[in-house]
This record gives sequence, structure tokens and C-alpha cells, in this order.
Amino acid sequence: MTTQVQALYDFSGEPNTTEMSITCGEILTLINTEIGEGWWEGRNSKGETGLFPAAYVRKLAPEESVQTKAAPAAPRYDQANDDWGDQQFSAGDSNFQRGTSHEEGWDDDWDDDTYSEIGPVQQQNKTQYNQQLTPLPGMPISDYNHHNEDTASNYGSSVGTVKKNSSFKPSSKVTGESYLLATLNVEVPDSEKVYIVQEEDRYEWWPITQPYTVTVASPKKESKFKGIKSFIAYQLTPSFNNIQVSRRYKHFDWLHERLQEKFTLIPIPPLPDKQISGRYDEQLIERRRVQLQEFVDWMCRHPVLSKCEVWQHFLTCTDEKRWKAGKRQAERDALLGLNYCISIVVPEKALLQSQVDHIAEQCHMFINSMDTSVKSVANMCMAHTKKLQTSYKADCQKVGEAFCSLAASLSLDEGSLASTSKLTTAIKMTGSAYIDIGRMYDDQPKYDWEPLGDKFHLYKGIVGGFPDVLNTHKSAIQKKREYERQTAENKMQVAQLNEVIRRTDVVSYSLLAEINHFKAERTKDLNATMQKFLRQQITFYKRVVEKLETTLKYYDE
Amino acid sequence: MTTQVQALYDFSGEPNTTEMSITCGEILTLINTEIGEGWWEGRNSKGETGLFPAAYVRKLAPEESVQTKAAPAAPRYDQANDDWGDQQFSAGDSNFQRGTSHEEGWDDDWDDDTYSEIGPVQQQNKTQYNQQLTPLPGMPISDYNHHNEDTASNYGSSVGTVKKNSSFKPSSKVTGESYLLATLNVEVPDSEKVYIVQEEDRYEWWPITQPYTVTVASPKKESKFKGIKSFIAYQLTPSFNNIQVSRRYKHFDWLHERLQEKFTLIPIPPLPDKQISGRYDEQLIERRRVQLQEFVDWMCRHPVLSKCEVWQHFLTCTDEKRWKAGKRQAERDALLGLNYCISIVVPEKALLQSQVDHIAEQCHMFINSMDTSVKSVANMCMAHTKKLQTSYKADCQKVGEAFCSLAASLSLDEGSLASTSKLTTAIKMTGSAYIDIGRMYDDQPKYDWEPLGDKFHLYKGIVGGFPDVLNTHKSAIQKKREYERQTAENKMQVAQLNEVIRRTDVVSYSLLAEINHFKAERTKDLNATMQKFLRQQITFYKRVVEKLETTLKYYDE
Repeated sequence: MTTQVQALYDFSGEPNTTEMSITCGEILTLINTEIGEGWWEGRNSKGETGLFPAAYVRKLAPEESVQTKAAPAAPRYDQANDDWGDQQFSAGDSNFQRGTSHEEGWDDDWDDDTYSEIGPVQQQNKTQYNQQLTPLPGMPISDYNHHNEDTASNYGSSVGTVKKNSSFKPSSKVTGESYLLATLNVEVPDSEKVYIVQEEDRYEWWPITQPYTVTVASPKKESKFKGIKSFIAYQLTPSFNNIQVSRRYKHFDWLHERLQEKFTLIPIPPLPDKQISGRYDEQLIERRRVQLQEFVDWMCRHPVLSKCEVWQHFLTCTDEKRWKAGKRQAERDALLGLNYCISIVVPEKALLQSQVDHIAEQCHMFINSMDTSVKSVANMCMAHTKKLQTSYKADCQKVGEAFCSLAASLSLDEGSLASTSKLTTAIKMTGSAYIDIGRMYDDQPKYDWEPLGDKFHLYKGIVGGFPDVLNTHKSAIQKKREYERQTAENKMQVAQLNEVIRRTDVVSYSLLAEINHFKAERTKDLNATMQKFLRQQITFYKRVVEKLETTLKYYDE
Repeated sequence: MTTQVQALYDFSGEPNTTEMSITCGEILTLINTEIGEGWWEGRNSKGETGLFPAAYVRKLAPEESVQTKAAPAAPRYDQANDDWGDQQFSAGDSNFQRGTSHEEGWDDDWDDDTYSEIGPVQQQNKTQYNQQLTPLPGMPISDYNHHNEDTASNYGSSVGTVKKNSSFKPSSKVTGESYLLATLNVEVPDSEKVYIVQEEDRYEWWPITQPYTVTVASPKKESKFKGIKSFIAYQLTPSFNNIQVSRRYKHFDWLHERLQEKFTLIPIPPLPDKQISGRYDEQLIERRRVQLQEFVDWMCRHPVLSKCEVWQHFLTCTDEKRWKAGKRQAERDALLGLNYCISIVVPEKALLQSQVDHIAEQCHMFINSMDTSVKSVANMCMAHTKKLQTSYKADCQKVGEAFCSLAASLSLDEGSLASTSKLTTAIKMTGSAYIDIGRMYDDQPKYDWEPLGDKFHLYKGIVGGFPDVLNTHKSAIQKKREYERQTAENKMQVAQLNEVIRRTDVVSYSLLAEINHFKAERTKDLNATMQKFLRQQITFYKRVVEKLETTLKYYDE
């Protein structure tokens, strides 16, 4: 049987190539899906054949193929904003003006491109999703939102970091009606299923079977349009294929948005801090690289995140067209928020609600306290780094200069330079030693305080993400209780309630697995982090001792 | 032939004792000078006999005895202020009020007693000296002063520390007329003579033959009048007799004034700084003790100062009446300023003026530069100490508290206290370690920065005294040139000029010897000081390393 696909977006094929233009809503018959690099071959109703991006179409289920269905309203998609930023530089484009006025490309990259290229498009998609959802009978959408806000404030979501564009978050993902009530039924291939297993008295994500790492290499300044526009690109190399990909900050940002949308039960590691401190461009870029490495490391070590499709796409795609296709596909992902729970396979055993409530409450208290602590450590690292690089350095320099000036005075009483006494030389060397120690104070933070701060930036993000996770869970539990009440009032059938309870348990299992994952990760990670930090501190003070001991030898015994 | 004395001050003899009252200006005939403890016996014009303090009278020269000379205007001497402070506590005395309102007795001792008990008396004495001097024919006193000020400003006396009561300094001591013109002829016993010898190409004070040290012990709070008044007394123990004497700050201050008056060619080490820093009384008192020890050490190591009479009196006198007598005697010392040069025995060889000028000029330049340097080191030590005890300590505490709060948060996720994980414990220990290091920063300065500061307080005083020494010398040289001119104009005889030249050479020899002494002393002293300082710094940083290494062991490998 032939497979049919429906175009989700307009695509203009390049003239005089094998590409074919398609129009949103158009039904095509698939000829070949083995073209590679994200391209498929198909035939349109006029009998023309050609290639189009696989991501621009969706396969129709057999029952859909026969009927001529109205395509969903296409998003107003402005292709000029979709590429790797190339098209935005047409004359008169205000983005182009910005681009040239910030030739360094970083601020631009950070503040403007990110939102102008990805933000608006995705917001429209979200709004569209919202409209496609089926509210519960007799319950207007505004009620969901209202209810959801109440729930969020129960857990004090102000504790967490404020999420970008949070007002556009489709309420369905949080309330999870479509998942809990099983109105959305998507078949998840086995390869994409995620398992939760019992390990002693804990529930855990099925561990990573093929661990890998990804290095974020020192960023390069790349340029486009013969140098008119330059930007910073980070080089990522996964250990599983050793193929380097180049990603700009805006790509990370796009990825981060997708992950936050998709995984409402898993806190997503944060991207680099905009408040990052650095005294010159290179240092700043390096700090961002380290924080991106922390992000990447956390992703790689997470059993669920490490294997999710959008992340894999981000890590491996080297082709521009495939990139676009994958990007579209990720943005069309139906398994967002609680819907993602469809992918999760949990133990058969039903959970005891009181036990789950207790653990969630414990976690809430813990996270509340951790939020304050990790912020305080992160701020302390930043403040201490600054102090070392300014006042500690200056203090040592003052000490050094005072000794140097003493040596200079003493040498005035010694006639020629050649006759400088041993004492004068020794005092001069002492002065130099303290000036050197000042430089060491300046240089040191990159080995201890900054990496520590970067680690706690990560934890700030993870911990800051937990209140939302807990709220998502709590909100599902509240739904369940509402349905239990409805069932008691005979407004819902017992069979349907049982399915709701089963699905709520999946949500709870997911929370428990994530709580345990966070605990295991941070224990291992903080142990290593603190030791590394202390070793660097010890090395530093040992170097100071060495420096002073060397100086001492200049004096007469 | 009977010896007559003239009362310099009023003295009220205790009624119904062997004591006799005397009135300032009164002429008495000496009967017995072997009474001891500073008392002499005499007979007044009415034929009454009795004891009076030897220090209250001056022996009349044979030629003075016959004539009934008008006594010099007596200083308004308030005996209540002369003793060891006993008499000042009569009811209604304002000092008494102060004494009780500042029961600690230090501020009082420092700021009030010192000046109220010794200051005014001595100032008046000086004024008296001034009036007794014989100005050069045709040169009014105001000219000397004016001339002297000019000279002082040549060498930029503003460089030095401002001397107390410097406006009362008798100009004769600086211009040294009576010494240079040999109008003052005092026989100096051999035991009090001071020798300058040639050592290779340098002139040096004859080295100390019997070196000794004096320890300034931790001060005690003593009290008088059954505890109504308490004060700080320092316990001095010279190594040559091992007999402890108790001295208050005001005694040091009095001694210092005498030394500055007497030795205008030798910079006198300074007393403790009034700007001394300390956060509580005991620390402050200890700092002052250390600075007094520095003063005492410098005195002991100086070939001239270490054996001078007033210093020996200060070090050894344990009897109250002897103390008073010695005090009076020191205050009546005729060999002040250039006049002291009568005690100095120099090599026969005449000095080459151009060579002396060159050395003095070199010294001037060097001292100018040193003055800036030693002040800068002293200030730096003070500022750095303060920083360590405030911001460095606070910074470490902030670091420690951030880690401790992290450990506290982590323990919330571990149930009972008993189940605290190894990691949580280790992080808590890390926090404690940094708080301890903060305390170490607070405590450390007393081992390194404060002693270094105290040493440079000493050098600040010595170096600050040199411009006056150089000015005294320069002024003598200028006198010599003036006499050479007068001789050329036949206004002075060649024989007298030769004596002036010989005596000017003594002044120059003295300067050269002092320059060399300072160089030798500081070389030895700074070498030891800097090494001690560096060793303490090394010890400190090693202790930090140890602390962190101990902490590291709490973590899992």
C-alpha cells in the first residue's frame, strides 16, 4: 500500500534541480524515503515528482489517506527568518542594521538573533496548538489557566528562575488533560520509549546503556557575507561519532526552548548566565563555553534527555537542509508536557498516593532550601572572584610596591647599581614576589572560583526548574482527585477513572525517578566538584608558599 | 672655701622634719652633699639649716658666690605636678577628676599626665635657658631664630616628624655658638667621653664594649591611692643587673624629650605611635609595648645613647627620691645640642670639607627618599592589617557560610541527622575550614604585619630625625664659613678660627659616625626583620594549605 503524506508548510523547490515545490495542505504520495539528509521523494496530484524536506510533511495514517481532509491552518511562516540567518540581511532589514553596528556579533547573537529568528515563529506555533486542544466539556479554557496559576502559586513558583515566554506556554501541557483523559493517542515506537525501573526501594530511569560525552571546544569567531557579519560558534564533538558540529548560541537557545516545552517533569539544565562576569571578550566567551559544557554534560548524563530526538538532532546534524527539517519536526512535536508521558513505561505496581505526596512535599522543602543555598554559593563565587581580581590583587601590589620603593631608596645609599647590596636586592625581590602573588590572585579564579561558580550556575538552573516540575505533578494529582469526585458523583465511568489513575501514576513515577536521578547525580557531581575546587585552592596556596620561600633565600642567613 | 647654691625653684619642707623650705632665687651655703637619695643639707641667710632636693638648686661658680646676683625669673613651678603623680590628687584637682573618670588610666596616662606633669615645667626651663645665652655681638636673638629656620627649610625639615614643643627649642643648641666659639668650657670626665675611630675608610663610634639588652615586659595595670587611680606601667629589665624597674609612658616621654634636647646630631628612636591601631585595650597596650621594645632595643644598640647618663638613670633608678634628683640633674644638663660635642673625641686628622659636604648631600637625598619609603611601608602594614582583619576575614566567612548553608540544605534531603551523608559532612567541614581561615586572617597580623609595622614605625622616627641632624650640621658649617669670612676681614684671630675649624670637624665626625652607624644597624636589622616577616607569612600560608588538605580528606576519593 502506498503511503501518503500531507504538506505542513509551503516549500519552494530550487528551479532546475530535483527539488519540488509543495503547498501547505497538499497530499502527496511517497516514492522514496531513502534519499538521506532529511529529504524524501514524492509525487503530487499533477503527477510531478521531486524531493522535498521530510520535516515539511506528515505521514497520513491509513484511515486518513482515503479521505481528503482539510489541512490544519498553516502558520504564517516567514521563510526569511527560518534559515541560519542568511536571509535576514536583505537591504533595509533592521536586523541587518543591528548586525553591522555590533560587529563583534556576540551581543547581537545573544540578545537579538535569538529572539528575532526563533522566538516569534515558535510563539505562533504554540498559539496554534492551544486552539487545537479539546477542553473538557463544560470547562472553558480560561478556567484551566486560572486553575493552573493557583496551583503554581501553591508551590511558590517564584522560587525558580522565570522562564522565557512562559505566558505562551500552552496550558494543556501543564494540566495534561489530553494525556490523563487519553484523548491524545499517539503510538510511540519502542526505540523512543523510556523505562522506569525499581532499584531496591527507589524508582529510577533505566540507566544509559551507551554512555557518551560531548566536548564543547573553544569557540571560533566565524563570519558570513565576506566578513560583514561575524559571530561566535561553538564546536561540539560527540564521543559516539567524533563528528564536529558548529552551533551558535541561538541554536542552544532554540534547543533549550524545545526541551523546556517537552520535558515538564524534568528540569532542564540552564544555558549560560547573561549576568556572567568577565573583564574582556575572550574571557567572557570562555566562561560561556564552560557553562555550555556544563549544560551539555548534564544532558549527556541524563537517561531521558541524553537520548531525546531534538538533542540528537542538535548534536549530529551537519547539513543545513536536514537541520531545517529536524527543526520543523521538533517544533511540531506532539509529545510535549504531560503528553510526553505516553513514552514512559512504568512498573505495573500502583503507587500509594500518600507516599508520593510525602516525597513531593519533602522535595519541595528541600528544593526551597537548596534554591537559596545554590544561589548563595553561585553569588559568593562571583563576588569572591571579583574581589580577588580587584582588591586582593591591588593589595598585593601595594605591598609589593612599598617593598620595591624601600629597595629603591636603599640603593640610593649604595652608589652605583653594580654595588647594590644583597639586602637591597632581597627586598626588591620580596617586592616583586608580592606583585607576582597579586597576579596569581588575578589569574587564580579561572582554576577554582569560576569553575565552582559555573557548576553552581548549573545547579541554580536545575534547582530553579524543580518548582515547575513539582507543580506539573501536583496539578495532575489534583486533576485525578477531581475525576475521582466526578466518578463518585457518577459523572465519569470507573473504567475511565482507572485509566486516569494509571496515567497519573506514570506522572508520579516520572517525578520519583527524576528526584532520584537528581540526588544521585548531584552526589557524584558535587563530590568531584568540591574536591577539584579544594585541590586548586591547595595548589594556589602552595604556590604562594613556594614564591615566598624562593624570596627568603635571597636574604643572608 | 664654702660653696654656695642658688634655689631654682620653691620647695616646701615637710613641717616637723629635717626638711627646710627654700624660695626660688635664695642663696644658701652648702653644708653636706653626702645625705644621699638626692638630698643636700644647707644653711639659709637666716642661719636656719635643713635638707632640700639637690635638683632644686644650682651650685654657684666661685665668681658668682661673692656678688648678690638677681636670680633668674623663677618658673612658676607647681610642685603638685612634679612627683610621680601623687600630689596631684588633692581634692578639687582637675587631674583627679580626669583620673577617676578614665579608670583604665591609659588615655589619661597617654594624653593628659604626660604633658600636664612634665611638659609645662620643662618648657619654662627651656625658655629660661634661652634667656641666659649670650648672643653674638651685634646679632639679635631673633636673627638666630630666623637664620635657623632658613637653614632648616633648606633641608626640608618638613620631611621629618614634627617635634613636640619645637618652638621652645633654644636656638643656641642648633647654632651652637657657645660650643664653636668655646665660650662654654666644661670639663668632661673621661668616663663620659665618647670616641670616634677610623675603620677602613669609615668613621665610626667606638663600639659598645659591654653590650646589654633590656626587655620591656607585658605591662601591668598598677594603681595608686587604694585603686582610685590606675595606670599602665611597663616593666623594664636590663641584662646587666637584672633588676626590674617600672616605667609609665610619661616617664618614657620625659626621657625622650631629654634625649632629643641633648643629642641633636643623633636621631632619637621614636616612642609608640599615637595613631596605633588595635581593636581592644589589651591589644593596643601590647602594640605599644612592642614599639617601646623597639625604642629600647635601638637605644641599647647605639654606642653613644646606650651609655648616656639620663638613659642609665631611667633604666636603673628604683628609688623615688633618687629618681627626682636624677630628673632634675638631667633637666639642668649643660651639654645639650652642639655643646654635647665637648664630650666627643675624634681622630687628629682634619676633615676635607668638600668630602663632608658630599656625604651630607648624599645622606640628605637618601633620607628624603627613605622617608617616603618607610612611611609607605609603615602605612601599608597598617592598612593591610586592617584589611586582613576586616574584609579578608569577612570574605572567608562568607565563603564558609555559603558552603555551610549548602550542607544544611543537602541534609534536608537525608532525613535524620544520623543519616547525614559523607558528602554533606565534607561540605560542612569545608565551610568550617573557610570560617577558620577567616579567623586565621584576623589573628595573623600580630605575627607578621604588625611587627613589621612596628619596625617601620621605628625607622619612620629615625629617618624623620635625620633632617634635623643634617640641619644642625649644616648650620655649624655655615657658622664656620662666616668665621672664615670674618677672619679674612681681620675681625677674628686665626688661632680662634682654627679652634672653630677643629670644633666644626668634631661636628662633622659625629655626623659621619652617625650616618655609618645607621647604615650598619639598618642593614643588620632589616635583614633580620624581613626574614622573620617572610617566615611568618610562609607559616601562615602553610597553615592554610594544611587546613584545606585536612578538609579534602573528608571527601570520597
